[in-house]
Amino acid sequence: MNKQSNYYAILMAGGVGSRFWPVSTTNFPKQFHDMLGTGQTLIQQTFQRFAAIIPTKNIFVLTNDCYIDLVLDQLPLIDRDQVIAEPVMRNTAPCIAYASLKIQKKNPNAVMVVAPTDHWICDLQTFQDDTLNCLSYASQEQVLITMGVKPTFANTGYGYIQYNKHLELSNKDIYAVKKFTEKPSLELAQSFLDQGNFVWNAGIFIWSVQEILKAFQDYYPSIYHLFNNGYDFLNTADETIFCKENYALADSISIDYAVLEPSDNVVVLPISFDWNDLGTWGALYEELEKDKHNNAVVNAKLVDYNSTGNMLYTHNDKKVIVVDGLSDYIIVDQPDALLIYPKSKEQSIKTVVSDVSDTYGEDYK
Amino acid sequence: MNKQSNYYAILMAGGVGSRFWPVSTTNFPKQFHDMLGTGQTLIQQTFQRFAAIIPTKNIFVLTNDCYIDLVLDQLPLIDRDQVIAEPVMRNTAPCIAYASLKIQKKNPNAVMVVAPTDHWICDLQTFQDDTLNCLSYASQEQVLITMGVKPTFANTGYGYIQYNKHLELSNKDIYAVKKFTEKPSLELAQSFLDQGNFVWNAGIFIWSVQEILKAFQDYYPSIYHLFNNGYDFLNTADETIFCKENYALADSISIDYAVLEPSDNVVVLPISFDWNDLGTWGALYEELEKDKHNNAVVNAKLVDYNSTGNMLYTHNDKKVIVVDGLSDYIIVDQPDALLIYPKSKEQSIKTVVSDVSDTYGEDYK
Repeated sequence: MNKQSNYYAILMAGGVGSRFWPVSTTNFPKQFHDMLGTGQTLIQQTFQRFAAIIPTKNIFVLTNDCYIDLVLDQLPLIDRDQVIAEPVMRNTAPCIAYASLKIQKKNPNAVMVVAPTDHWICDLQTFQDDTLNCLSYASQEQVLITMGVKPTFANTGYGYIQYNKHLELSNKDIYAVKKFTEKPSLELAQSFLDQGNFVWNAGIFIWSVQEILKAFQDYYPSIYHLFNNGYDFLNTADETIFCKENYALADSISIDYAVLEPSDNVVVLPISFDWNDLGTWGALYEELEKDKHNNAVVNAKLVDYNSTGNMLYTHNDKKVIVVDGLSDYIIVDQPDALLIYPKSKEQSIKTVVSDVSDTYGEDYK
Repeated sequence: MNKQSNYYAILMAGGVGSRFWPVSTTNFPKQFHDMLGTGQTLIQQTFQRFAAIIPTKNIFVLTNDCYIDLVLDQLPLIDRDQVIAEPVMRNTAPCIAYASLKIQKKNPNAVMVVAPTDHWICDLQTFQDDTLNCLSYASQEQVLITMGVKPTFANTGYGYIQYNKHLELSNKDIYAVKKFTEKPSLELAQSFLDQGNFVWNAGIFIWSVQEILKAFQDYYPSIYHLFNNGYDFLNTADETIFCKENYALADSISIDYAVLEPSDNVVVLPISFDWNDLGTWGALYEELEKDKHNNAVVNAKLVDYNSTGNMLYTHNDKKVIVVDGLSDYIIVDQPDALLIYPKSKEQSIKTVVSDVSDTYGEDYK
């Protein structure tokens, strides 16, 4: 427990997830929904995963100003000062630098895991073992750890991590990272798979505050200095004003581009638990149980005729869907929007959202 | 106005309209919905059509006990004693006999029009002229008048009326009825069209109370006597108890079978206004304006890709429907049910309703 008191988690909950429209909207993004129909929202499941290994008071949620109430509603064990809210969206690097400085000021020996709140993870025990091993490793070694997922096909929507040198981490394999590649072409993705020493970037990072802040100083000093200039205000009543005045000045850049790619001390742990980024309705479909006609149903009461391979979702479990003659469709019902859309076109849902809001207004976004 | 004080209307509002599921349900049938998106429900439109030619106090609504509140809510000009409610469903003959006796007791010279409340009628002026002509004719002649619709195709879902002898009704053509045929086979329906002297039965009847009660006495005396035995109770405080004790004893039979088919004094007026029984979603589709992709939309805000010929309905006008790759479908959204069903199978929606209620309970019926 003494050791664990240095362990921190930063849960990233600022994204919009527009490919999950009409469930995920600007006002109520994906991570705050019970996408899997388990009775818990994705952020609640994420919180629960970490609360088993990290003291609750050391879990911080990074989000946007407009989602503070949603976070506090859904995570009653979190205090307001554990919600770190960006006044404007600036991608992941600025908010991680900002949160790291706040945590450093509380505990200079902090070691933290940074994780998305909208992913699906199965095999809790392995996830927690892997995370604890990484936290322990990061508290001893001067490394930035990423978690990687063994790729199963040439997915062009993910980031890839190439690794080389084998290192030791208790009884797990861990590797020095050679190169990051964001969303490759299909050919490139295929060549990565053929080469073998590539994993998908799961967006889960583990490092000490000391190490990540050193990396910002070395590789993206403008962001480091922007927030470090307000160090005295952090965790005080004046922090909000400082943040309002300065946050928007930060470059909008991802943590991967800003510090992980240029750093030479990044390592990757290929994970052994099941993971899915739940990036699209099709990805959700893959993780759900199917009925005898291969339809995946969240909440809805389904009566189907001549219909197979559909992903069906309703916002409550009272609603009946009757469908005849539709296959491989996404059918999603929300109070103000109904989507009936081929699964094969799921990547175009972002365009659909634009079309809808262009035609009927921003409220539908 | 003196003449019109003998004119009565009986609006039939006891049906369920299950082929319009999920909008039309046992608790809230079709006639109480704004099916056309005009801002008025079908029963409100029907009431308005008659209120222009018949004194409001002479308009009675025949319905089931469970719809009394719906009728009074939707027709504020109707008093409670103008709502004649059957305690159990017994088809149209018993309730028409019962209502006719009540009206006879008020006014033995009454002439009445009996009409469904869930049909679509265009050309109000012609409808009112035709109705007034029939009321006038029925007050002078010992006839039972039906309104007939010139058939445009071999519809097997309607009743057909064969006529022969030409009679005179002011400047309109009216004919003696030879034979009624309920829902013929396709071949038979086609032969009716080929012969020419057939019309669809619009279910709108005009007769004097005297003449219809005589027909009941002659051709279905059990129903006549059942209610005539309670004549003293009609229009009094004791009527409800009488009705509760006796109504269920009536045979369940339609007015067509009970008295029109055996009667030899039935005439038919082929109508000259536009009529649609709105019996199915496809029938509704025909009457609605289409957008440039031939989709008919009630209430919904539509964003369509590669989709034509669909009938789309939402229960409020805030809801967006996005649809890609669906043609000739019925897409109907209600708070507790969503139907996505091929228009070509619309006659099977009754079976769908059974399947839904068998699987998920009577609440969905």
